[in-house]
Amino acid sequence: MSDAALGESEFDHDTAVRRRAPGEYEAAVSAGWSIGEGVNGGYLKALLGRALRDALPHPDPFTVTAHYLTATRPGPAVIRVSVVRVGKTLSTGTASLCQTSPEGAEVERVRALATYGDLAGLSGEVRTSARPPEVPAYAECVGLAEAPAGVEFDVPPLAGRLACRLDPHTAGWALGQPSGRGEIRGWFAFADGRPVDALALLLAPDTLPPTAFDLGLRGWVPTVELTTHVRARPAPGPLRLAIRTRNLAGGFLEEDVDLWDTADRLVAQARQLARAGRE
Amino acid sequence: MSDAALGESEFDHDTAVRRRAPGEYEAAVSAGWSIGEGVNGGYLKALLGRALRDALPHPDPFTVTAHYLTATRPGPAVIRVSVVRVGKTLSTGTASLCQTSPEGAEVERVRALATYGDLAGLSGEVRTSARPPEVPAYAECVGLAEAPAGVEFDVPPLAGRLACRLDPHTAGWALGQPSGRGEIRGWFAFADGRPVDALALLLAPDTLPPTAFDLGLRGWVPTVELTTHVRARPAPGPLRLAIRTRNLAGGFLEEDVDLWDTADRLVAQARQLARAGRE
Repeated sequence: MSDAALGESEFDHDTAVRRRAPGEYEAAVSAGWSIGEGVNGGYLKALLGRALRDALPHPDPFTVTAHYLTATRPGPAVIRVSVVRVGKTLSTGTASLCQTSPEGAEVERVRALATYGDLAGLSGEVRTSARPPEVPAYAECVGLAEAPAGVEFDVPPLAGRLACRLDPHTAGWALGQPSGRGEIRGWFAFADGRPVDALALLLAPDTLPPTAFDLGLRGWVPTVELTTHVRARPAPGPLRLAIRTRNLAGGFLEEDVDLWDTADRLVAQARQLARAGRE
Repeated sequence: MSDAALGESEFDHDTAVRRRAPGEYEAAVSAGWSIGEGVNGGYLKALLGRALRDALPHPDPFTVTAHYLTATRPGPAVIRVSVVRVGKTLSTGTASLCQTSPEGAEVERVRALATYGDLAGLSGEVRTSARPPEVPAYAECVGLAEAPAGVEFDVPPLAGRLACRLDPHTAGWALGQPSGRGEIRGWFAFADGRPVDALALLLAPDTLPPTAFDLGLRGWVPTVELTTHVRARPAPGPLRLAIRTRNLAGGFLEEDVDLWDTADRLVAQARQLARAGRE
């Protein structure tokens, strides 16, 4: 398959929003980004990011926080955007994704608060002290749709949209041998070859398996809140992700994600607060 | 001075809010928490946190994101709270701090999005893999109002309200010798001895000098966005803070803060996106 161009891929189609009134957008939550019991939170964040990009004068998400309120279902949705402030270099807005319940009531699914800017307008100075994670080459990592021998599982739709790969050193949990370190590393890419742009950086942090699996926990790890800082436009090629949990306590955990491009640039940092699944 | 009781300290007085209508609160931004050109962002976050605590059914901030829009000035303010969702264990709301400009227009200063819960209702399980930072004993650290010999500076009002202390190993920048590592460590406490509760954890991450100073930058480091996860009620005594910047690039930087209590519990984690000052 040839690479999908920016604007023409599955991701672009499934995050399309149509303005029907000032600050009000129609969207269709695709079933193609589902996993486990829900719709992927990064995909929903990118949907909100599209509507925010339309409503704000600046093109790129700099910092976006989403609070996940109720379980989003595939199907129609309305996104309401409110512009909070427009400045010279930064602008801020809120976005809310709502769906209609079977009883006909409007239910809010996700609320976001975001500040946008222009990544192309930033200085070229880079003084990053963090080092890229040691992730084996893409071809040496494990596809998320590849089950280990003897393990049966249903490949979630999300895995088909992505060409993510997992560092085998952080995949022991799939064979019943979690390391206990709370670390997941791997690669992020779109299955249809779409380039990774700033909008895709809202999706990417939430696409590898949860670190909770490497801590020996099982089950769904619902995100309470996810904040992403987009710091640069990625160079072409897949991203390397390093995800870490250092504080599992009281039934909650954080997940810290560093996202690196092929030019060894730290292009985004994300942190989420999630509820721990049952062990 | 004997220790100020919870509810009777300067911090409690200066974060007091008065409900004048449903979802609308009067507040007075105190000049006592100023530093450099502005009012401390952690103090403003705690002000919003007080209003949110009044409006939401759950008592404790679990995750609070604040976007700093325009420069807050000491003086009267209005806080508007909107309840987004009330669930069984978590509730979500937004809060907005506004002031009136000299021309009589209402200007929004800070917008927050927060989810509250009940820390007392969490399980007692702690599986934290992070280790407390190595900070010298409180008495061996340097008070923020103590100038190095030969250095003259105006003690900011904030330093008088707090009894924070800086690890001398991360204070070289004050003598013109920044380490370049982007690390600041030290202690947080209230000058009047008030206990550190969940609300104070919204203030604390933003009270030590910016890591940018340890990177050799000077000048004001305005916060764009600050997210705090409160994970546990702190044990009595001062907190240890470890602050780190790993990615200064394009004129922006993140600051990651871990906050530890005297029982070696990681009680909060915070991350901000800030603009770098001039070198």
